[in-house]
Amino acid sequence: MQLNKYTNNWYKPGSKIKILSWMVFSCIFFESKLPWPSFIKISILKMFGSKVGNSVVIKPGVKIKYPWFFEVGCNSWIGENVWIDNLTTISVGENCCVSQGAYLLTGNHDYKSNLFDLIIKPVVLENCSWVGAQATVCPGVTIGEGAILSVGSVATQDLKCSGIYQGNPAIFKKSRIYRKKTQ
Amino acid sequence: MQLNKYTNNWYKPGSKIKILSWMVFSCIFFESKLPWPSFIKISILKMFGSKVGNSVVIKPGVKIKYPWFFEVGCNSWIGENVWIDNLTTISVGENCCVSQGAYLLTGNHDYKSNLFDLIIKPVVLENCSWVGAQATVCPGVTIGEGAILSVGSVATQDLKCSGIYQGNPAIFKKSRIYRKKTQ
Amino acid sequence: MQLNKYTNNWYKPGSKIKILSWMVFSCIFFESKLPWPSFIKISILKMFGSKVGNSVVIKPGVKIKYPWFFEVGCNSWIGENVWIDNLTTISVGENCCVSQGAYLLTGNHDYKSNLFDLIIKPVVLENCSWVGAQATVCPGVTIGEGAILSVGSVATQDLKCSGIYQGNPAIFKKSRIYRKKTQ
Repeated sequence: MQLNKYTNNWYKPGSKIKILSWMVFSCIFFESKLPWPSFIKISILKMFGSKVGNSVVIKPGVKIKYPWFFEVGCNSWIGENVWIDNLTTISVGENCCVSQGAYLLTGNHDYKSNLFDLIIKPVVLENCSWVGAQATVCPGVTIGEGAILSVGSVATQDLKCSGIYQGNPAIFKKSRIYRKKTQ
Repeated sequence: MQLNKYTNNWYKPGSKIKILSWMVFSCIFFESKLPWPSFIKISILKMFGSKVGNSVVIKPGVKIKYPWFFEVGCNSWIGENVWIDNLTTISVGENCCVSQGAYLLTGNHDYKSNLFDLIIKPVVLENCSWVGAQATVCPGVTIGEGAILSVGSVATQDLKCSGIYQGNPAIFKKSRIYRKKTQ
Repeated sequence: MQLNKYTNNWYKPGSKIKILSWMVFSCIFFESKLPWPSFIKISILKMFGSKVGNSVVIKPGVKIKYPWFFEVGCNSWIGENVWIDNLTTISVGENCCVSQGAYLLTGNHDYKSNLFDLIIKPVVLENCSWVGAQATVCPGVTIGEGAILSVGSVATQDLKCSGIYQGNPAIFKKSRIYRKKTQ
């Protein structure tokens, strides 16, 4: 590969003014350790084009690349120090938990090409899924409804609905079964 | 799971004033990159209720959730950017090394319950144990005396005394044997 | 192990004034989130003794322990939040990609010794190699020419040229083969 020949000119994530404005808001309200209430952060996200459902919780230290490529449904939680590295759409469903230190990744490179071309693929977290602390979700991966990616694991492929996955690469371990009578 | 029904009202980690005060001290003296001497940091930790032995070393960038749930014995080291995420007691023994970027975790959720109840379990590092750089220790885990969790590994179960463990989940690789005549 | 007997007095990475000066520059220009242009960062690195080739790209949030132990060849990229923990030489070749959140490690301890002696070993990334996002390279490891360490993996041993490795410890998965006619 010859990185001097690399170009991602085709990739236009947004105007410079929008990106720079977001960087300022991100530093003050998102990446900082200050415990701003979630409703302030959600207003800012919406202002920058995110689709955000009701009752979303966003903890401090969260890093979102481009909020206009971010969607999150009702009641979902984005934990402390989560890194949403969304060069393209990252869509988090309803009632999802993205635990502290998790990393969601959308950018890859074509390592078979001498030009190391940028490849971007969306990430989808379906409803009621849980990405564990320090876990990583790779580009193009869908975390199925109710699926769990356990602590520190790396999802390189889709996780089936209600599956519990572990390891790097994360493999299926068992099914998630709800207890009866959980109120 | 329905996160709008989630409640952790039973969990009372401390008064708001104590938690806010700690956040200020943590930002200035612990999470910052400034190389404050360990004795200052230890005095602050004790002021907030930590039990700290003699000659403990605490590097910059360390993040401790609630110092009143933190114990560390004589001569132990807490490395750069270590994250002590102690919703309940994390107890580090004597002569332990917690290397840079390690993450000690005490909070979990009951994924079999529709309510996703918070579960907290203490973490114990017994004397002379070593948690390697970027490694993760899960809730409820005890790292046995002299055991080693290698770089980037994830301890999901107890590590036996003097065992060396690796991977995610970390599995036993070999025993730690001290050389004779090491003075 | 008895950490009160630990000494690394033999280890002299540089004068205190040099180390402190670097800490200031590092905070302002490297570890900060501010998008300083790469040429400013490269000038600073050279001022502190790094060997830096042409057209190197250094993203924000990069943490370099001691720049005088750092070499990087033409066209290489150092991604966001990369941690170059170089107690001794870390040498990155030409046309290399060190992706965001990667961690390059040079320090270890002799766990068979009661004194827990510091062990430092250089890390080498040969030309056209790629260390994936959130991946870790252990002390003494050489990443062979064109080799790839995949996302979140931990290289504990040398990677062969053009090999693709994954897991913790990272194991060989397949060979990297360039497509024909990639211009």
